[in-house]
Amino acid sequence: MIEDTHISLAHGNGGRHMRALIEHLFARHLGGPDLDVGLDAAPIALPAGQELLITTDGFIVQPLRFAGGDIGTLAVNGTVNDLAVSGATARYLTLNAFIEEGFEVSELDRLIGSLAAAARAAQVCVVAGDTKVLPRGQGGGLYLATTGVGFRPAGVRLGMGRIAPGDEVLVSGPVGDHAIAVMLARGAFELSGDVCSDCAPVGALALPLAQMDGVRFMRDPTRGGLATVAHEIANATGLDVHLDEAAIPVRPAVRAVCDILGYDPYSLACEGRVVAVVAPSMAAACLALWRGLPQGAQAARIGTLASGVGEVILHTGLGGERCLDELDDDPLPRIC
Amino acid sequence: MIEDTHISLAHGNGGRHMRALIEHLFARHLGGPDLDVGLDAAPIALPAGQELLITTDGFIVQPLRFAGGDIGTLAVNGTVNDLAVSGATARYLTLNAFIEEGFEVSELDRLIGSLAAAARAAQVCVVAGDTKVLPRGQGGGLYLATTGVGFRPAGVRLGMGRIAPGDEVLVSGPVGDHAIAVMLARGAFELSGDVCSDCAPVGALALPLAQMDGVRFMRDPTRGGLATVAHEIANATGLDVHLDEAAIPVRPAVRAVCDILGYDPYSLACEGRVVAVVAPSMAAACLALWRGLPQGAQAARIGTLASGVGEVILHTGLGGERCLDELDDDPLPRIC
Repeated sequence: MIEDTHISLAHGNGGRHMRALIEHLFARHLGGPDLDVGLDAAPIALPAGQELLITTDGFIVQPLRFAGGDIGTLAVNGTVNDLAVSGATARYLTLNAFIEEGFEVSELDRLIGSLAAAARAAQVCVVAGDTKVLPRGQGGGLYLATTGVGFRPAGVRLGMGRIAPGDEVLVSGPVGDHAIAVMLARGAFELSGDVCSDCAPVGALALPLAQMDGVRFMRDPTRGGLATVAHEIANATGLDVHLDEAAIPVRPAVRAVCDILGYDPYSLACEGRVVAVVAPSMAAACLALWRGLPQGAQAARIGTLASGVGEVILHTGLGGERCLDELDDDPLPRIC
Repeated sequence: MIEDTHISLAHGNGGRHMRALIEHLFARHLGGPDLDVGLDAAPIALPAGQELLITTDGFIVQPLRFAGGDIGTLAVNGTVNDLAVSGATARYLTLNAFIEEGFEVSELDRLIGSLAAAARAAQVCVVAGDTKVLPRGQGGGLYLATTGVGFRPAGVRLGMGRIAPGDEVLVSGPVGDHAIAVMLARGAFELSGDVCSDCAPVGALALPLAQMDGVRFMRDPTRGGLATVAHEIANATGLDVHLDEAAIPVRPAVRAVCDILGYDPYSLACEGRVVAVVAPSMAAACLALWRGLPQGAQAARIGTLASGVGEVILHTGLGGERCLDELDDDPLPRIC
């Protein structure tokens, strides 16, 4: 058992205390037939006819918990979702924990328990991990990194290179919920509200589309939000991305906070949404599929691709338009 | 190009500055046919008849550079070596960088350049990565995490479960160099010396043994050193590990620092050594193989396994013996 109530440097030194932390906290939550904490490297079985994909992400959200999630659910879903929008079913995760000296063991236990529950919900197994302890004052509590391995049926081809003029842009739900939920959890600006993070696995949304002909490209709009995804598409293709402001779903509570603080909701992070670029002939079918799922009920057709100079143009409700600039200074750092 | 000389929170926000950092610093060093920074997840090709292994490790060494290496070479070799001692040839890495606001871009450039050189030397490709920026004062400069994917020929079976009484313990070279090199780089205790870290890939040492019948188990003695590996074996097997102090190679300069400060060299980290447990009939062949390599010139037979109660017993030069306790308080935190 873990004898201490708070993390000390000895929990990171490779000896008895570290072994206790790994066996009695991490392995208790994450244990299963695929995790053997006595191994230096874990074997992964390969299904026939599948491609293997790998991705990685770091998590430094502050505060560590917020309405709708915490750093543990983020660390699972952020990585699982990068695989899902690539057309791959996530199967395995590795976990790095950087824990600050003095961190409460009971809080670590709750957060890793939450991570384990999110992993079960997303049907992924943690197969390898590592812990490091940072000296007091140099850690911000807890930082996590996860690397995900997933399988993709051979023949799935998604990529920005397949995007063509006339293609349509879809989003699976309201944008900005995650960033505003984290901001409200900070208690800054004396604002409060009941915005929940959208943090969730997007496999049910993304994987059926990945196998549909005419679906060109998908991405989850995390840091930098929808605007950043639009800029990445514009930069990579040289096409203009035209977005219809009136069509982009934004919850009233998110819109209200944005109006008060002067934020642009299109630059705010989501953690459970998908942006898809699809051939015009496929847009209706994709939307119908998404709207048939609880997490896609507010899915919308929000824009089109056209020949141009690689700009992102927001068509405002009044018939006007403005260039949506690439994010420069971040109004909300540390949201994932 | 990167317009700034120091890292700011904007380098972590998903926008223009982050894109510049990734394209003009990380991708410049790490770029290659297997790295596409525009992808959410990278595909991995699977050779026929091979098992896939995965491992992960975090790196918080302080200072970031030391004689014989830096956090970049550690981040490559630490992970590559966990695969090698499992019998797998490392092929791919993912990289997480947690960078503190205010960190010098030129120093980041040197360290990632060093990481890239170490990756080339170890013949691994970085295929995915993520960067996060930590607020000033909450980062300790730079933390890294790497996850490694390697391939192992089907049929390789290594594991503590295969260890039997009578087996012999080998080490591929002197122990403690890495920990002492890092300690000296701190300039603490007004000590100086010319100890270089042993930080290096161990594939050439470990992979030939992995395919030899009678090689039971290998591990690289990093945090907690040789003593911790011995305890892991004793705990897992219930056998006693008898170590012959006179046979364990320790460089005179390492021994001298240990004598001055009261450190036990057997608890100090290595970053380029292998501990192997082999059947007695194989010990001579394994030693000959190691001694034929430059990095194995000082390889030694250092102990044996015997029925017992799961203790680690150090036989001292004078015919005496003492129990080698499992590491409790760490004399040298943050050495990897």
